[in-house]
Amino acid sequence: MSTSVPTLDETHDPARRSWVASANDAASDFPLQNLPYGVFTREGDRARHVGVAIGDQVLDLTVLEAEGRLTLAGEPVFATGRLNNLMAQDPVVWQRARTEISQLLAEGGADTLRGTALAGTALVAQEAVRLHRPFKVAGYTDFYSSRAHATNVGTMFRGAADALPPNWLHMPIAYNGRASTVVVSGTPVRRPLGQLMGPGDTAPRVGPSARLDMEIELGAVVGTPTRLGTRLDAGAADRHIFGYVLLNDWSARDIQVWEYRPLGPFQSKAFATTISPWVVTQAALAPYRVPAPPREYPLLDYLAEAAPANLDIHIEASLAPRGAAPHTISRTNARHLYYSAAQQLAHHSLCGCTMETGDLLGSGTISGPDPDSFGSLLELTWNGERPLTLGEARRVFLEDGDTLALTAWCEGRGHRIGFGAASGTVLRAQD
Amino acid sequence: MSTSVPTLDETHDPARRSWVASANDAASDFPLQNLPYGVFTREGDRARHVGVAIGDQVLDLTVLEAEGRLTLAGEPVFATGRLNNLMAQDPVVWQRARTEISQLLAEGGADTLRGTALAGTALVAQEAVRLHRPFKVAGYTDFYSSRAHATNVGTMFRGAADALPPNWLHMPIAYNGRASTVVVSGTPVRRPLGQLMGPGDTAPRVGPSARLDMEIELGAVVGTPTRLGTRLDAGAADRHIFGYVLLNDWSARDIQVWEYRPLGPFQSKAFATTISPWVVTQAALAPYRVPAPPREYPLLDYLAEAAPANLDIHIEASLAPRGAAPHTISRTNARHLYYSAAQQLAHHSLCGCTMETGDLLGSGTISGPDPDSFGSLLELTWNGERPLTLGEARRVFLEDGDTLALTAWCEGRGHRIGFGAASGTVLRAQD
Repeated sequence: MSTSVPTLDETHDPARRSWVASANDAASDFPLQNLPYGVFTREGDRARHVGVAIGDQVLDLTVLEAEGRLTLAGEPVFATGRLNNLMAQDPVVWQRARTEISQLLAEGGADTLRGTALAGTALVAQEAVRLHRPFKVAGYTDFYSSRAHATNVGTMFRGAADALPPNWLHMPIAYNGRASTVVVSGTPVRRPLGQLMGPGDTAPRVGPSARLDMEIELGAVVGTPTRLGTRLDAGAADRHIFGYVLLNDWSARDIQVWEYRPLGPFQSKAFATTISPWVVTQAALAPYRVPAPPREYPLLDYLAEAAPANLDIHIEASLAPRGAAPHTISRTNARHLYYSAAQQLAHHSLCGCTMETGDLLGSGTISGPDPDSFGSLLELTWNGERPLTLGEARRVFLEDGDTLALTAWCEGRGHRIGFGAASGTVLRAQD
Repeated sequence: MSTSVPTLDETHDPARRSWVASANDAASDFPLQNLPYGVFTREGDRARHVGVAIGDQVLDLTVLEAEGRLTLAGEPVFATGRLNNLMAQDPVVWQRARTEISQLLAEGGADTLRGTALAGTALVAQEAVRLHRPFKVAGYTDFYSSRAHATNVGTMFRGAADALPPNWLHMPIAYNGRASTVVVSGTPVRRPLGQLMGPGDTAPRVGPSARLDMEIELGAVVGTPTRLGTRLDAGAADRHIFGYVLLNDWSARDIQVWEYRPLGPFQSKAFATTISPWVVTQAALAPYRVPAPPREYPLLDYLAEAAPANLDIHIEASLAPRGAAPHTISRTNARHLYYSAAQQLAHHSLCGCTMETGDLLGSGTISGPDPDSFGSLLELTWNGERPLTLGEARRVFLEDGDTLALTAWCEGRGHRIGFGAASGTVLRAQD
């Protein structure tokens, strides 16, 4: 089975406008063509509701469903205050949701919510709500699918000749990450303690990481689950992906270098992984599919893609020292990834591994070809050789009080399909 | 904080007998002193109930709780048909459960269930029920804590001089495993497909693993959860462990050798992990604590144990070709582990990683010092150099139709604290 390009329909029409005026601003992350899902609470109310971002507002789907204005599946999908119940449905239901919500918010639509009493209840300003982790993360798998990143890191630690492991060009390499510490943007990130063994040390000690890094990633979110023993090829896998989040795979390089042989990263990655609060759907990204990079070797059949499955998503990372303005430190693009999320999911299920609703697949650090498009401080400073200058501050790795924020968007059709931010501030380590 | 030996109380008294006669058989895995928890369904009823094994019977705790004969926490803990709700409680509640259940089943107890109408409803023969995975697995982490195993595997692949990685004697090495494919004993295990790259191959291909192996492990089950940023030392960690299961970490060696550099095992371990249906509690194992093996280097403070935390559990693996009798292929003991589950959990939380109710920590393959106590076929056959003879069959790795079963027990007090079996039959790969 081959990958097919998702069909564009009226919900993608660039001419379509919303009666929520802020959504029509060309600089907004959340025009009518986007409709990303999130989970929020209103001030003074602990109940979590599912919503979609529209301009500077959130449309409350939990309320709309309870009032009978949205009936997507046989049973309520938004009552739990988690996205998982919608995600677990067939893609046909995802499509129905997109079409219905677009109609509610479109200017001049027959089924518009405009001017109804319900609109007053269901629409709430984003600045008045608190955003939460949008879905329960079932499993978190972190891939390693940027060729430039794997080459950069390999060159630093093994030399240019052995930079890329021999398996790399044949399979999307990955390790299982820690799902319990995936946190939503805005959650402070405490500098981890770990076992450290410096180059001159004769014995390890416990201490705070001194080489705290970010990794710019995209996270694919599995929707429809599979059963044990089911194998998906890339084409079938593509239809199981509900959407994408921005992801910062915080990494403690000094903990990592001591622990990772022979079984891979563990504590160096387990203290926090930040995701954006909005899940941008596969459907919203359909117009931004681009061909994969050239293949050095033909890929095995299960990884073959007959249609473009890479995504043209511009991603930026900014770093703000405590009390200072943010500086953009990297501008990269998801199109550089050698393996798409569909290929990653196909590889993940090759052995028959059960894939669950809410599984999160990190793309791996997204580094582009140019030094200012690298996706980690390790690469941007070339292992500390070229510190970054941020106004009066210099940085090799992250310091306490630093705020690291990722933002991302697709563009080219007169509006942006934006992700919002995935941001976190570094707190000093525990005593 | 240091490890303290759990107190023995009347529930451990070897003289204590049950009115369920089969529990008093010295060869039973499930005497009154054990009381392991499981989840079962009765014939013709899909509702999952929590029970404890007693002799050849199961005591239905969901029924007892519904009838008001067990009130352990402020809310029902057995109504969901999962162990997680009990596991999430404070250890004080676990202790109360043990004491109350022991009294219900003890001969001559004041609060006995003997002869009541409820006993007829709540007691059901094990052979009449179906056992399920006893708890929802939140995360699965697989350690590598047997020195003999790490040395054997290291010797085979890196030579004797570099057998043990330099970090190994200082920390319990681990990788995150795949929680979604942890299955209960009796679930068939389908031979996985994977990318294979043989020594003479010029390009990888997809095919069924030809080097399918078992790994004898013990799995520690986290009960009381922690919050993000909480760090446990070994003493504190010990009190978060609810109990233990037997665990077979099925491994596809040929998939593993091609995929594992540089990020560790992934598809080679993701197709299935079999656990025993019974969770033997920390309390039941209290009399079988033994000192850890000698330390080559002093351990860092957070790993220090002031009291014995290793467990004297005898474990056997048997292999039965299709239609043939089982042959015991390994006899080993959990006491050989260099790191205890408490030390593993302390290391797991060092960076502040949130630990969840239902987290499963595999011990790593348990190999003893002698060749017949090795915990994997890779070691038992020394990478194929010494095939095993099983009657008329010979084996290097597992063949289709083979049934691999682990069994385990503690002994020495006139009864056995048994785990039942963790068993699986290999099915041929998908076409």
